[in-house]
Amino acid sequence: MLRLGAMPSKPSKKPSQSARQRVAANIRRLRKGEGLSQEELADAAEFHRTYISQLERCVTNISIDGLERLAEVLGVDILDLLQPSA
Amino acid sequence: MLRLGAMPSKPSKKPSQSARQRVAANIRRLRKGEGLSQEELADAAEFHRTYISQLERCVTNISIDGLERLAEVLGVDILDLLQPSA
Repeated sequence: MLRLGAMPSKPSKKPSQSARQRVAANIRRLRKGEGLSQEELADAAEFHRTYISQLERCVTNISIDGLERLAEVLGVDILDLLQPSA
Repeated sequence: MLRLGAMPSKPSKKPSQSARQRVAANIRRLRKGEGLSQEELADAAEFHRTYISQLERCVTNISIDGLERLAEVLGVDILDLLQPSA
């Protein structure tokens, strides 16, 4: 059960784009910008070779440690992986 | 093994503050701003009652779905949970 009664009422900021969708779009864009295949990026970040494909299809609930590893390999900050699409 | 040979050389942007440390600091600040105990926030976001304590001690590798749930309860965007401390 949610116990939102304890919270001040505030307009919900539920984004139209989910966190998974944001990550998927940013990973794809940054990966392509580096000229990497899904398998190459997976390999460089020490994930299973099918993991980036899953991520780009929003199948995977990645952790912040995993996101941090991808950000490092892609040379960006973790915030860049969670920016909403323009 | 990392295969960074495939990537253009680029200055590493490894932040001094880890993603876990950022999340911990932001959750604590936002939670206190709402006047919530760790247990109250855990309850509102449907986590185990000890989970926020773990998160604020950087023990937990939270997933983006979990972060999204916390952001929603706290009335912020998921990006606000990953901002580095000033």
